[in-house]
Parts: sequence; structure tokens; C-alpha cells
Amino acid sequence: MTTWDELWERNRVYSETHIPRPNLPDVKPSPIIIFCCIDLRVPVQEFFQTSPEGAQLNCGGRVKPNLNDLIFMEATQVGALQNIIVIHHTDCGFTYHTDKGLKEKLNVRHPNLVAEVDSLSWDTFGSSDRLEESVREDLSLLREQNFIRQELKDNAKGYVYDIKTGTLKEVV
Amino acid sequence: MTTWDELWERNRVYSETHIPRPNLPDVKPSPIIIFCCIDLRVPVQEFFQTSPEGAQLNCGGRVKPNLNDLIFMEATQVGALQNIIVIHHTDCGFTYHTDKGLKEKLNVRHPNLVAEVDSLSWDTFGSSDRLEESVREDLSLLREQNFIRQELKDNAKGYVYDIKTGTLKEVV
Repeated sequence: MTTWDELWERNRVYSETHIPRPNLPDVKPSPIIIFCCIDLRVPVQEFFQTSPEGAQLNCGGRVKPNLNDLIFMEATQVGALQNIIVIHHTDCGFTYHTDKGLKEKLNVRHPNLVAEVDSLSWDTFGSSDRLEESVREDLSLLREQNFIRQELKDNAKGYVYDIKTGTLKEVV
Repeated sequence: MTTWDELWERNRVYSETHIPRPNLPDVKPSPIIIFCCIDLRVPVQEFFQTSPEGAQLNCGGRVKPNLNDLIFMEATQVGALQNIIVIHHTDCGFTYHTDKGLKEKLNVRHPNLVAEVDSLSWDTFGSSDRLEESVREDLSLLREQNFIRQELKDNAKGYVYDIKTGTLKEVV
């Protein structure tokens, strides 16, 4: 288990050889944004052999929570973004849970917060059978967006990543 | 500029030596979740010398968009999470924009979508002077949450990362 003290010390060592980064106006925006799970078994930067290239990491790799970030990029970096990629993966934590089950769990722990629990949603997958369907849902959500260029919507691709084989399978 | 074809080919090469990952029940959950910006100049995995340890990456490193993910972790991995870390950084894209300015920009481009534009929010920083304040806002938001353990709220820490020096400065 990594403690915060260890991370802090690692940052101190890192900073000794850190090369100052350029200011934002001199940085070329990433042409690709990847929606992917935070799961450590899905190492985007390794399997693409790149530093995370605009990787938007959240639970499950769902698009909805970070859709506004995409709108931000479209509004501020006109035309820079060329591809949107959605990656869900096998054995994801989201396959083990349903929103309904999570709410029941929270209601047991917080019986006085029924309304607040009811307002929550995660769009968990509920089952490993739903992985391709969940990718399709996210691609559909993207394609419904008014603030995203048609070209970018047309280029969007979705994949299921297999933690056992390390390969991506395109979802069509 | 990396094209999708190049990324796809890199994944093919990677998969040839990929080591199958264990199933979720055999994986120890990360004790730390880090909210950080997707900006490539803020390489969490480098400056902590670790693979991204539960790094939740979005625009600005804001907590609000991915707060539900934190609630998911608390609900499903009871007690596993020990630290929440919020990192905003110097020269962030969010320092160059205000929500108001972004909406004005979108309204010019989409004059028929005024209500939809009005419903958007990013909690951009608006200025580099607001970096410490924006970290404090995110820590406050965390501490208001009913579904997060008190111990975890008490352990939460916030930092400003300096892209020029590579160092973290604690926000108190």
C-alpha cells in the first residue's frame, strides 16, 4: 500500500530533475480524447505506448460524467480534437453492480437520506454481457450532442478491452 | 500527431507480450484516489513514480463531475480508500476561461440553443489567482458529502502543482 508520505517523497525526488513545461499557448492540443476506466488493469498509456493522450479516466469509462469537459475542449480548441474513443473493459467493477443494488446498499447505510440516494446514478453495466451495449450507449450519447462537431461524432469509435489478452475489440 | 491507426498498431504490438491481469476479486483496491487534470504537462504517474494510482482525470481536476465515482468506491470497497487528493495546476486551461465567457462563445455558435447553453457549467477557474481557492472549493465539496466516511474526509488533501518546477504545494 502506497502512503501519501511515500508519494510526497517521490514528488520531491522527481522535481529535482523536472524539466519545466511550456505554457499552454505553446502546447499542441491532443487530437484524441479517450474515455476509459481508472482501473489499473487497463493501462491506456502502456497499451497505446504513449503518455495518456487526453485520457479522461473515471469509473467504467463512462462518457456522461465528463461530457462537459468534451464541450469545453470543442469550445476552446476549435477543430483540434479529431477522435473520441470510448473504452470499456472486461471484469470492470461496473459489471458487478447495478444502480438499483447500489442504492439499496446506500439506503441500508443511510436510512435518513432516501431522497438523496434516489437522485444518484452511475449507469453501471450490471453484467459482463452488457459491455458492448454500454459502449454503444456512450457512442449514442456522444452523437446526440449539439455542441460537438459532426466530423468528430462521425470519427468516434468504441472498444472493449480484454484484461486477459490485452487486446481491443471494436464495437460496431 | 498520433493517429488512431498508430494507436491501434501499438496496441497490437503490446498485446503480444501482455501478461493477463487478475480478476477483480483478487485485486487490492487503490488506497488513494487522485483528482487531477488531463493536461499532459501534469504527469501524475511520473511525479509520483507510480502507475496512475486511482487517478481520476478530467478537465481541471475538478471533483464535482466525478463525485459519484467516489460514492461508488465507498459503497463497494468498504474502508479500502484511505486518501483523497485534489491537484489543480498552474497554467491550466481552466485559468484562461470563465463559465460566463464559454457560454457567450457557445451562444454565438449555437444561437438556437440558448437554454441548453445556459444549463451547462464547468466551474472553470477564470484566473491563475484562483488556483488555491478552487482547490479549497473542491475540498469543501468533498467534506459536505453524506456518503463519504468522516475519516476519509479528514484525510483529504489539496495541492497546486507547478508545471515549471514539478513540485506540489499544499493548500491549507
